[in-house]
This record gives sequence, C-alpha cells and structure tokens, in this order.
Amino acid sequence: MKLYEFYSFLDLAGTFAFAVSGATAARQRGLDVFGIYVIAFAVACGGGIIRDLCLGALPPAGLINWRYLAATLFAGTLTIGFYPVVKRIMQPVLLFDAAGLSLFAVTGAQKTLLFGFSAQMAVILGVTTAVGGGVLRDVLLNRIPVILEKEIYASAAFLASLIIVIGAWLFPVLGDLVSLFALAPAFSLRMLALRYHWNMPVPK
Amino acid sequence: MKLYEFYSFLDLAGTFAFAVSGATAARQRGLDVFGIYVIAFAVACGGGIIRDLCLGALPPAGLINWRYLAATLFAGTLTIGFYPVVKRIMQPVLLFDAAGLSLFAVTGAQKTLLFGFSAQMAVILGVTTAVGGGVLRDVLLNRIPVILEKEIYASAAFLASLIIVIGAWLFPVLGDLVSLFALAPAFSLRMLALRYHWNMPVPK
Amino acid sequence: MKLYEFYSFLDLAGTFAFAVSGATAARQRGLDVFGIYVIAFAVACGGGIIRDLCLGALPPAGLINWRYLAATLFAGTLTIGFYPVVKRIMQPVLLFDAAGLSLFAVTGAQKTLLFGFSAQMAVILGVTTAVGGGVLRDVLLNRIPVILEKEIYASAAFLASLIIVIGAWLFPVLGDLVSLFALAPAFSLRMLALRYHWNMPVPK
Repeated sequence: MKLYEFYSFLDLAGTFAFAVSGATAARQRGLDVFGIYVIAFAVACGGGIIRDLCLGALPPAGLINWRYLAATLFAGTLTIGFYPVVKRIMQPVLLFDAAGLSLFAVTGAQKTLLFGFSAQMAVILGVTTAVGGGVLRDVLLNRIPVILEKEIYASAAFLASLIIVIGAWLFPVLGDLVSLFALAPAFSLRMLALRYHWNMPVPK
Repeated sequence: MKLYEFYSFLDLAGTFAFAVSGATAARQRGLDVFGIYVIAFAVACGGGIIRDLCLGALPPAGLINWRYLAATLFAGTLTIGFYPVVKRIMQPVLLFDAAGLSLFAVTGAQKTLLFGFSAQMAVILGVTTAVGGGVLRDVLLNRIPVILEKEIYASAAFLASLIIVIGAWLFPVLGDLVSLFALAPAFSLRMLALRYHWNMPVPK
Repeated sequence: MKLYEFYSFLDLAGTFAFAVSGATAARQRGLDVFGIYVIAFAVACGGGIIRDLCLGALPPAGLINWRYLAATLFAGTLTIGFYPVVKRIMQPVLLFDAAGLSLFAVTGAQKTLLFGFSAQMAVILGVTTAVGGGVLRDVLLNRIPVILEKEIYASAAFLASLIIVIGAWLFPVLGDLVSLFALAPAFSLRMLALRYHWNMPVPK
C-alpha cells in the first residue's frame, strides 16, 4: 500500500468515525432519522466546508466528494438500524476518530499552504478543519462544545498543524514525510489523553 | 398570472412566512425589538445566504434583494406592534411556510444545477436553502433545531430537491414544469404532516 | 497622531476588548485554556470573517492579520494567568468595547461600499461586523445572544452603519470625516446605555 492510499484510507475512516460520533450524539438527544443524518454529515464535513469557504476553494470538497456522503450515510444507517453494532465498535471508532482528527488537521494546514497563504492561517484552518465538525455538532445539539472543555482534542489538532507549518518551512521538499511526523505525535497525544484522561488545565 | 409571477409571489410569501416564524419565536423568548428583526431576517434569508456562500454566488442574494428585507421588516413590525393580528393569521402563515419550504428547496436545487454542480450538491443545497434559516433561528434562540426533531419538515425539502434533480436528469428541457411537479408533493407532504402530526421515526 | 493612526489604535484596542469579553465569558463557563483562546479569537475576528465571506474578500482579514491574533493571544493569556488584572481593567475594557463596536460597524459598512455594493448591504454587514463576534461567543457558550436581549448594543452599530451610508451618499468625498461623525454618536449612545442601563423596548 502506497502512502497516498494509506492517507485515503485514513481520510475515509476518519470521516466515518466523525459521522458516527455525530449520529450517536443526535440519537441520544432524540432527533428523528433525518436529523441523525444531518448531524452526521455536519460533523463529517463541517470543518472542511468552513475551511474551504475561508480559502475560497469553492465549491467545498465536503459537498462534492461522494465518498464523504457515502461514509456519512453508512454511519447514519448503522446508528439508526444497528445501534448494538455501533456500541460494539466504539473502541475502534475512537481510534479512527483520533486518526481523523490528526489527518484533518494535517490536510487542512497543507491545503492552506498549498493555496499560498500564511503559516498563521494554516495553523488556524488546520485546527478548524479538524474540530469544526465537532463544534458544529455541539452547537446544533445545544450544548457547549465538549472539545473546548474536556480532554486534549483541539490541542492535538493544533500540534499537528504546527508541525506541518514548521516542517514546510524547514524541509519544503519533504511534504509527505513531514505529514507522517505530524500525524504520529498528534495521534499519540490524543490516544494517551483518552487513555489516561489527560485534560488541558482549566483556570479557576 | 404567468408561472414566473406565481413563483415570485410564492417566494415573497414564503420569505414573509419564514420571517414571521422567526419574529414570533424571538418575541416569545423575550428578545428586544432589534433582536426580533435580526432573527426574522436570519430565518428569512439565512438558508439562501449559506447556499450562496457555498456556490460562490457572491454577494448572497439574501443581502442584496430589497424585497426580502422589506418582507422581513414588515413581518417584524407586525409581530412587534400587532401581535394579535399575527396570531390571527397563523393558519395562512403555516400554509405560506410550507409553500416557502418547498419553493426554497426547488430554487436552491435549481440554482446549484444552473451553476453546473452535481446532483448530490443540488440536493444538499436545496435542503440547506429551505431549512438553513430555521436551523439558524433555533441555534440563535438556544434550542435544538425543531425541524430535526419534529414533523416532516426537512424531509419535505429533501423530497422537492430530489425531484428537481431527477427531473433535470430525465427531462432537461422542462425546467419550469418539473418544478411544479416538485412543489406539489413537497407542499402536500408538509401540509399533511402538519394536519395529522406525522413525524419521521425516532430510534429508541 | 494622524487620523489613520488613531483608527489603527482604536481597531487594535477594540479587538483586544472583544477578545477579553470572549476570554472572560469562556473562563466563567469553565472552558479549558485552549477553549478560552478559541472563544477570544471568535469574538475578536468572527464578525469580520463573516463579513469578508459575504463580500468575497478572501481570505478573510481576521485570518491573515497577525495583529488581531496577537491581540487575541494577549487577551487570552491575561485572562488565564492574570485574572485579577482583567477584573481591575474591566472599566476601560468596556470603553474599548464600545469604541470597537462603533469602529467595526463603520469599517464594515465602508468596506462594503468600497466593494461597490448597495447601501442596504453596507448597513447589514456593518452591523454584522460589529456584533457577529459577540453572537458567535454566545452561540458557542450555549446561551441566547445577550446583545439581542439587553442594552443598546446592536442598535449602536446600526446607527453607525446608517450614518456611514447616508454620509457616503451626501458627501462622497469626505470619507474619513464622515466616519468621525458616525463614530461619535454610536460610541456615546453605547456608553450612555451602559451608564444608565438603557434598553431597547421588549414587547410583552
């Protein structure tokens, strides 16, 4: 399997994991089946859509790539019709979610640099790509975005985006290799935070 | 009356109905007069603005068409100063709301196809045009979007968008006629759902 | 000090005040340190970003101007590490907030006119620039936007935008002077509303 295929796989697996997190939360809040699909789609594609609106990369990739829609529909249907299955695969889903979080930050930052914009913007839009969908989910479900309150989530996306920007500056020719060096620590940080319940400090 | 004039009338009547739903909800939540106008405008124009941002159709039609603003101001003023009148016309307002819902889905899907984008995107943006304003209203008023919970609302918009896309594919030359075939079932579905309290299934 | 420098100063001071209001509210809701910076940034730059998305002025100024980010980081760090200081400077912060509110409405309306768009759009986007960030803050923190409920806030932004539009129509050559005539009454109105707890009427 080539690196490109590996990334494509992570991209789809991450999208699926994001959609599952949206569908599950929507189901728990008592939304109807259409609402469940809508929230699943918002989480899976929301961050990328906001990024593309800011980049002027129209129409947004999240609206035209049928794979994202397919992953969303699959996740929604699983959550609606086969909820016990979803509960059983929650562990791998969290793993894919961490992978998606890291990869979306990486691709968000890279796309911004590719468009010729600044390092500052790449970091902001990297984080936005990774956490925008989750924030949208919580706003639509009427609660404070959990990623701004608990566990190291947005911070892992920040780390990945930062490494991309620094790597692109230091080693402009090694794009794909740098992205591996960004993925690994962000993914590890997120998994360790989940495992040991690490939180960012909350000022009192 | 020509078909075009009929659509213009539905468009304005729908915008007015959407604005009334926003102004009424804002008034019930205790917002001040300025807040009432803001929510009325958000419901009336929000869906179309999000669609136009995604299409790159800038500036958004909702910001430049003075008729929409006029319909909003009229609805807001009625709700602020003549609330008994608004309560009395609630039945026709619900009718116009269903008409607006269907028409906005139709025009949203058609505009997306007109810009040369895919069927998938036309369905997504058709639904977005129709329900985006209502979702915005509920987010701003701090509650879970009612259209994702109750009654067949977003699903009626989905039906209309789907018919447009299929119609454009089967009968590419009959645009206006197809739109009638999309409007009628979506409008009927919504009115029947209102009358008989049909809901989309909610998984338990 | 030239007028331009005076505006630059107000712009930064206003951004800082907006960021402080975001960081403070986020801290009071128990967000972690990353969440505090995110909300601070959303308040400081959110209104301008929404305006630029609607104008097609991409990428949005709020994402590329490092001064805004610096003001945000400074405000966030103060709120996290030196909260007693923030409480002590709350009075001047409210003053800067009123200045920022008025100036953002003025610059938002002027930028819209500069892009060649209509007076209606200039007023809408002037208000959006000024209050968009505060609305975003309250949506993210899961409460009804306070500016739609209490005190004359959005209305002061409306006044400033309106004066800009009328001024540009009556005296097309006096841009900078007109902006002073818009700033002063909006700023005064906001300060007086704060001092004497003026509210817009709330229909019962």
